[in-house]
Amino acid sequence: MKLKVADLDERTKLPSGPDAKGNSSRGSVREELHLYRRERILGVAAELFSQKGYSGASVSELAKMIGVTKPFIYYYMKNKQDILEQICIATIDLPHVVMDEVFSEDLSPADTLYKFVRRFVWVQSTNQNYVSVFFREELNLSPDVRDYVTERRKEFDERLGALLRKGVETGDFRIADVPVTVLAISGMVCWIFNWYRPEGRLTLEEISLLFADLTLNMVDARRRSDQAV
Amino acid sequence: MKLKVADLDERTKLPSGPDAKGNSSRGSVREELHLYRRERILGVAAELFSQKGYSGASVSELAKMIGVTKPFIYYYMKNKQDILEQICIATIDLPHVVMDEVFSEDLSPADTLYKFVRRFVWVQSTNQNYVSVFFREELNLSPDVRDYVTERRKEFDERLGALLRKGVETGDFRIADVPVTVLAISGMVCWIFNWYRPEGRLTLEEISLLFADLTLNMVDARRRSDQAV
Repeated sequence: MKLKVADLDERTKLPSGPDAKGNSSRGSVREELHLYRRERILGVAAELFSQKGYSGASVSELAKMIGVTKPFIYYYMKNKQDILEQICIATIDLPHVVMDEVFSEDLSPADTLYKFVRRFVWVQSTNQNYVSVFFREELNLSPDVRDYVTERRKEFDERLGALLRKGVETGDFRIADVPVTVLAISGMVCWIFNWYRPEGRLTLEEISLLFADLTLNMVDARRRSDQAV
Repeated sequence: MKLKVADLDERTKLPSGPDAKGNSSRGSVREELHLYRRERILGVAAELFSQKGYSGASVSELAKMIGVTKPFIYYYMKNKQDILEQICIATIDLPHVVMDEVFSEDLSPADTLYKFVRRFVWVQSTNQNYVSVFFREELNLSPDVRDYVTERRKEFDERLGALLRKGVETGDFRIADVPVTVLAISGMVCWIFNWYRPEGRLTLEEISLLFADLTLNMVDARRRSDQAV
């Protein structure tokens, strides 16, 4: 079975800048429009904050980029901090969407890990503005949102840790220390926001395949012929 | 031979907060004192910027933390941006100090990589304030310093890439794509600033050993009995 990473795009490609399009089939037209406008604001804000930094950007500038007035923005978002926090919440939730999907399939630990890393690379790269804002601006979050982020990170580590432990039990993986290996894998993938360029030498498809292989090497996975996912 | 990572501390442990001590034997007492005070400012500033963010911190606050006046700070540093830039230059130069040292030894590619990763982990963790400021505040650098940072990063990737290619040639490593593997290794290690806690479950020694092993797995290194460095 060949992986179609793009299948996941609908749910994990967060809204982006000027070309962002809305999603349909989400209830009434009114609700749809509300959601679409909210997401559009977040997408452009992620681009703006990523380019100028949160403290260097203003709501006036954001409104100008979208081509609306400031009151329009304030109808959808409480304030600049609220916009930042919605960006960060969407970003920390992203890898969980991938886990929900991949972990529920009936695959071996090695196949699950392989497929998860490929999709994790995919979502981190296609949402690069969100991810870079998330990692740079953590200090600007309110205590509540910081707690949420910490909780979701812990949950991520536990879920990936459980998969690695399962692989050790089945003999698929050999791992000296599961929690450190979890941090090594997530660090390697999250770091992509620092260097990924869509116009670079390799396609995202190629990068995701290389990273999935590197991860299987890290956990010393027993390779199987039917492993291609 | 057992690695004494602490040997490197003298040159790679950057000055830190309130308890920072100066280095001796650096020319005249006057020069020493100048250098000591400059480094002391940087060390406390790294702590302050790391806690409050660059834009949230002020020179008055920094002066108060050190117990000096603002003019004292301005005698050693041009302005707040100058302080940030000196922190970032010191940080980007760090892994190069480790490379200069480890790469000049007459070791096999696998031994070199193993030793390098151990020490790289060590310097990134013991200078966590510097590293976190560096990665968060890149947008606040002047174009000249940004260019310097880009150049040093490129140089880092090339040097580590050359080591990996040498290992492939000697048959020590099996690597599908050298540049991506370089980015995977450096991402995994740089990411430590995000999760390392000195009071955590594992010692830095233990983390550095685990990361060095994970790296050798990544490059599919042929393990040798005399490899312990």
